[in-house]
Amino acid sequence: MKIICQKSNLVKGVSIVSKAVPSKTTMPILECILIDASTDFIKLTANDMELGIETTIEGEIIDRGIIALNAKIFSEIVRKLPDNEVTIETDSSNQTLITCEKAKFNIAAQSGEDFSYLPNIEKEDYITISEFTLKEVIRQTIFSIADNDTNKMMTGELFEINDNILKVTSLDGHRVAIRKIELKESYSYKKVIVPGKTLQEISKIINGEAESNVDISFTKNHIVFEFDKTLVVSRLIEGDYFKIDQMISSDYETKVRINKRELLNCIDRATLLIKEGDKKPIIINIGDEVMELKIQSQIGSMNEDITIAKEGKDLLIGFNPRFMIDALRVIDDEEVDLYFMNAKAPCFIRDENQNYIYLILPVNFTAA
Amino acid sequence: MKIICQKSNLVKGVSIVSKAVPSKTTMPILECILIDASTDFIKLTANDMELGIETTIEGEIIDRGIIALNAKIFSEIVRKLPDNEVTIETDSSNQTLITCEKAKFNIAAQSGEDFSYLPNIEKEDYITISEFTLKEVIRQTIFSIADNDTNKMMTGELFEINDNILKVTSLDGHRVAIRKIELKESYSYKKVIVPGKTLQEISKIINGEAESNVDISFTKNHIVFEFDKTLVVSRLIEGDYFKIDQMISSDYETKVRINKRELLNCIDRATLLIKEGDKKPIIINIGDEVMELKIQSQIGSMNEDITIAKEGKDLLIGFNPRFMIDALRVIDDEEVDLYFMNAKAPCFIRDENQNYIYLILPVNFTAA
Repeated sequence: MKIICQKSNLVKGVSIVSKAVPSKTTMPILECILIDASTDFIKLTANDMELGIETTIEGEIIDRGIIALNAKIFSEIVRKLPDNEVTIETDSSNQTLITCEKAKFNIAAQSGEDFSYLPNIEKEDYITISEFTLKEVIRQTIFSIADNDTNKMMTGELFEINDNILKVTSLDGHRVAIRKIELKESYSYKKVIVPGKTLQEISKIINGEAESNVDISFTKNHIVFEFDKTLVVSRLIEGDYFKIDQMISSDYETKVRINKRELLNCIDRATLLIKEGDKKPIIINIGDEVMELKIQSQIGSMNEDITIAKEGKDLLIGFNPRFMIDALRVIDDEEVDLYFMNAKAPCFIRDENQNYIYLILPVNFTAA
Repeated sequence: MKIICQKSNLVKGVSIVSKAVPSKTTMPILECILIDASTDFIKLTANDMELGIETTIEGEIIDRGIIALNAKIFSEIVRKLPDNEVTIETDSSNQTLITCEKAKFNIAAQSGEDFSYLPNIEKEDYITISEFTLKEVIRQTIFSIADNDTNKMMTGELFEINDNILKVTSLDGHRVAIRKIELKESYSYKKVIVPGKTLQEISKIINGEAESNVDISFTKNHIVFEFDKTLVVSRLIEGDYFKIDQMISSDYETKVRINKRELLNCIDRATLLIKEGDKKPIIINIGDEVMELKIQSQIGSMNEDITIAKEGKDLLIGFNPRFMIDALRVIDDEEVDLYFMNAKAPCFIRDENQNYIYLILPVNFTAA
């Protein structure tokens, strides 16, 4: 194989596909990026068997062929080359010569034959969404997936398409995040659980421009994201997702309207009195026109009053401050509404149209 | 004690003195910042017994007094407060109330009486240097101090003042860095060894503006840096510094003039073939008009030619690439001169007036 590409194209392509290179693996071939120049295009691919990414880069193919190069070494080399044309040439023993201006690198590579190609998926059933919207909806929900594998389902997000509405749900046992997005067209009903890791990597790769689109197609076991010469194929998580509708209620005994920035800054300040691993709740005392926030730990205590507009009963309730912060950070509204039932029932932060719903379970505390 | 300061003044002062708070200590009082409002000024002080920093901040003293607050907690609290007036008030049991707008923090503090004050040093014998020059000269030499304590002297830098010349020297057994600075005035002869840590912290605190000055005064055991309401007092390292003049020679058999950027980028590229801890040298083959750089490791090999102007003999010599990179990075000249004697003698990188001299010892290698 012999190809010539601009350094900048190589750097961009390698950085995209590297997201699918596993950080730990016992199979050296999975640590590789495949350069496939066996057709008329130069394709880079990485695949950790759960998530696979393929991207096409511009360049000239002198001799057709394929080669698998260690992703870490290859990406470091291309990044440090002069900003000029790069020639990649392999011999029959997979020795690879990378040349740019007067710099010559010689590294051992692996045969491309050993590489696991991405599953070949027909693009039949797909929806279109802007990069901006996809990136936003991931950011607004991804923090409430569970990060350990004890319940596989909780490590993913539910993508549900109903007509022209995409509903994304994540939950970790202590909280739920729901976002609804209006799509430009209507589609047939779909319901899949997408691994959180896939969404995190997608979110890093896409630029997030409002004018660029992503086509998302679905098969029984896979989801495919296609955009800008790049294909991301991910396995889906199997199983029935949690019954979310049963958890969501619109009843309330107390409704609080509050300035989001003020509430967020106040809780943020309170957390510095909590050492990592310590589970001190923030205690919220809702009265007429004023909500008092209190926290007490070994380090000291803090309290602060925030002006609110209240409907309904007074309430004393405790929360994990981290969960409040996570939800408030991804809400763009200046004023938010908090809905409470009682000190043992979840708090809902939601807008009027329920385009976003953040459910947070309270924690027990001993009222001082 | 009761004082009122703007949050921004507190943040600035706390961030300056925090540089002298030790990260590990068995004495809780050393982890504290002392607020001394016992006179007409509000002074913040931290002191790890080697290095002490004191700075005066603007503010109003309502009740005179002193208090010692845990540096980490105090600095986190002030940083997260609203941008407004902050009141700090202590009671007789050292409980401290920090109030800003509606936020109230209550933390336990320690008696200021237990705090070790900075040594009181008369400012008699001092030199003046711009913040810019001091920051630059530290950056240009600090990388070649030794970072472990096996030879205490190597962890410091020699500051030598002779007439209107400040000469700064550092060495770690494999290399030497020397910078000469012309001062605006002449001073009596001085020679001290300043701990590297002190210089690193000073360099973080000063803004590095060319118009701001630092007064540096000397006593038998201490060096004092004074600038912008801040006083940094550090112990000196005792002993006689190495005889540098015996190591420096102006003789050479080979002189190479080379583009600095090209050489630096080339060596930087070469290092990516070396895993951390691996001691592979970069091999330099000096011929007429061309210098070839080669490196070979388990990962692969690299070689690159760079155009040079040469005087004298051809030479094949090996270096630790890290040492070359460190020296070249802090040289501002576009072209640099490299002087060699033979493959076992040090390489000198220096300008014509010897305002900078970087000496690097070669390493043995087996010529392939």
